[in-house]
Amino acid sequence: MTMVHLIEYDEATAEVRAVYDDIMATRRIDWINNFWKALASDPATLRRTWESIKEVMAPGALDPLTKELIYLAISASNGCAYCTASHGAAAKKQGMTPEMLSEVMAIVGMANQTNSLANGYRVPVDERFEKLF
Amino acid sequence: MTMVHLIEYDEATAEVRAVYDDIMATRRIDWINNFWKALASDPATLRRTWESIKEVMAPGALDPLTKELIYLAISASNGCAYCTASHGAAAKKQGMTPEMLSEVMAIVGMANQTNSLANGYRVPVDERFEKLF
Amino acid sequence: MTMVHLIEYDEATAEVRAVYDDIMATRRIDWINNFWKALASDPATLRRTWESIKEVMAPGALDPLTKELIYLAISASNGCAYCTASHGAAAKKQGMTPEMLSEVMAIVGMANQTNSLANGYRVPVDERFEKLF
Amino acid sequence: MTMVHLIEYDEATAEVRAVYDDIMATRRIDWINNFWKALASDPATLRRTWESIKEVMAPGALDPLTKELIYLAISASNGCAYCTASHGAAAKKQGMTPEMLSEVMAIVGMANQTNSLANGYRVPVDERFEKLF
Amino acid sequence: MTMVHLIEYDEATAEVRAVYDDIMATRRIDWINNFWKALASDPATLRRTWESIKEVMAPGALDPLTKELIYLAISASNGCAYCTASHGAAAKKQGMTPEMLSEVMAIVGMANQTNSLANGYRVPVDERFEKLF
Amino acid sequence: MTMVHLIEYDEATAEVRAVYDDIMATRRIDWINNFWKALASDPATLRRTWESIKEVMAPGALDPLTKELIYLAISASNGCAYCTASHGAAAKKQGMTPEMLSEVMAIVGMANQTNSLANGYRVPVDERFEKLF
Repeated sequence: MTMVHLIEYDEATAEVRAVYDDIMATRRIDWINNFWKALASDPATLRRTWESIKEVMAPGALDPLTKELIYLAISASNGCAYCTASHGAAAKKQGMTPEMLSEVMAIVGMANQTNSLANGYRVPVDERFEKLF
Repeated sequence: MTMVHLIEYDEATAEVRAVYDDIMATRRIDWINNFWKALASDPATLRRTWESIKEVMAPGALDPLTKELIYLAISASNGCAYCTASHGAAAKKQGMTPEMLSEVMAIVGMANQTNSLANGYRVPVDERFEKLF
Repeated sequence: MTMVHLIEYDEATAEVRAVYDDIMATRRIDWINNFWKALASDPATLRRTWESIKEVMAPGALDPLTKELIYLAISASNGCAYCTASHGAAAKKQGMTPEMLSEVMAIVGMANQTNSLANGYRVPVDERFEKLF
Repeated sequence: MTMVHLIEYDEATAEVRAVYDDIMATRRIDWINNFWKALASDPATLRRTWESIKEVMAPGALDPLTKELIYLAISASNGCAYCTASHGAAAKKQGMTPEMLSEVMAIVGMANQTNSLANGYRVPVDERFEKLF
Repeated sequence: MTMVHLIEYDEATAEVRAVYDDIMATRRIDWINNFWKALASDPATLRRTWESIKEVMAPGALDPLTKELIYLAISASNGCAYCTASHGAAAKKQGMTPEMLSEVMAIVGMANQTNSLANGYRVPVDERFEKLF
Repeated sequence: MTMVHLIEYDEATAEVRAVYDDIMATRRIDWINNFWKALASDPATLRRTWESIKEVMAPGALDPLTKELIYLAISASNGCAYCTASHGAAAKKQGMTPEMLSEVMAIVGMANQTNSLANGYRVPVDERFEKLF
């Protein structure tokens, strides 16, 4: 059901294998998930996307677990089943407990509710909120 | 430009004022933002929405700052200008630094990119991700 | 701030005027709203869109007010400010009361909440729901 | 493929059973659909979401069928397969005929078309629409 | 798993068959895909949607391949699996190469990223962009 | 109304100026639009986003005009006003005529209509479409 052939490690070019190797080394795993195998049909996008994710998800002002929770929240909000499953797994690996998952989902639900209410009522932004930035 | 009249405290019914009072007491502020003034046209929705947000955003397995960052991330991802402004302000009040804001936005951008790529390539969920839950 | 010049009645071609005339006659109004003036830059799309809306919104198994409430609900849910304003006005003209507007918005908010929860938890469709159709 | 274990009635806590019982009593059914079994992993969200839906979907200025049609329309518009199936079933139970289903879907399609056209052309809201509220 | 019965050619009314015949003649194919079989439950919507697509996708200022690539891009961006599959097939028939598919998807991903960043940072439209139209 | 200070060239660090210089050189322009000035608050995201866009939008299997039309189509579909304005301007610079703009918008509208109909009716993907890839 994929739009492209999923490229396994054994059949990958050296360029693709280099990215696969870096993904496995960075994440300390010994397998590649389907998302990357699909992107491998376009090596430039595979490399660019991986380098970007690696940079964005590296520890910074926010810790890796918080970053994964945010990534999971957006994936759930967007209704992307693949991303919800993969980033749910990634968040769990970073320490997400069942209670945290529940709270993330409750916020996702609440935010989607109030986002649609604010849009639906066409609520104007308060002056005070503008002054904060 | 609002779809309903924004109800100020002075013109509010006792039922609406009770919610306004609880919002101000809970958040330790002395004013009400436009979102609630719009919802006040429907007191049941005002009360229900406030009670729900209060419950969802209370400290739990996740701290208030993390919760606000997630709320902000979804609002930004959904393109809700009002909610981005109001939850940006709320997150700042909870301690969000400019670096944190940048990292939240970078994740929002990245997640929207990979969500659309996973959907566009119709990537099947890996068996290993299914087994995690 | 529009992407195209808004075409007024006086400057319109006969082809565009014919659509404008039909819009005003069908809706019993004496003016044209900006949506149509923007579409008029592409007469084929103007005609096709108007003919389609006229057909879809005509009385059928659902009455005109119910149809406008549904149109308004989707516009609010999608965060389309123009459509929320214009279909809010159209619904009001068809008899939408302030109480109805409140109830529509409450459903919009609730549906967006539970839609994101169902997607976020990746809830499988119950067998019983499949058998209904 | 769910993100959490679906909690059956027999294994549920008293707190969860109380909500399940109220759902079955309110809807006059003798089973619980998967959405609630997924939310049951987070009893507070289960209760809050159910109480909110019960309040929002109760008869008011709009009758229960109209409310379910709006809920179905938004679920279809959002592409939430679970919600489309469950609220399609709920609407059918409230009296939705095949003709009504067709008309709801036609409006969903039309609204998504014109919403994207209004956004794409960046059509400014007409003064007359602003004055209506 | 469909919301309506899929109507096959043999069981279709003359009205529906006429549309099916025109679809097959226009596209030079000898079968009907499920989308039209679902719409056939509502002959007016079947006819209107087909006539509209035929008009919109006909050669014009843009050639048929470019039009299909745009249709595919939006379907992928919206996460509509059916439309991504069907318009992916249509684009391939019009000459889309694997390299073109990769580039379309890369743009889809990039646009979704920068769209969410522009919304998230609430970037004001530059004066110069307004003057162009 | 922006969430961050827009950084002008004169106040930018050397790191930010290097990106600004490359944007102006690549696009053969002598000014920087607000999107980049907002991202400049996070130099890593500014650089990463610019390098990615430069790579994705470079001539390839698709020419620059076709790429900009697809970018514009997604921005319009997503309702991102900033991106619609900026990529509308970019497409015009690449040769987009008013007729092309009209056709892009007509496809955006049509795709959003049929995407929501396919989702709403929960149409299963035809076997034949699966076999194409």
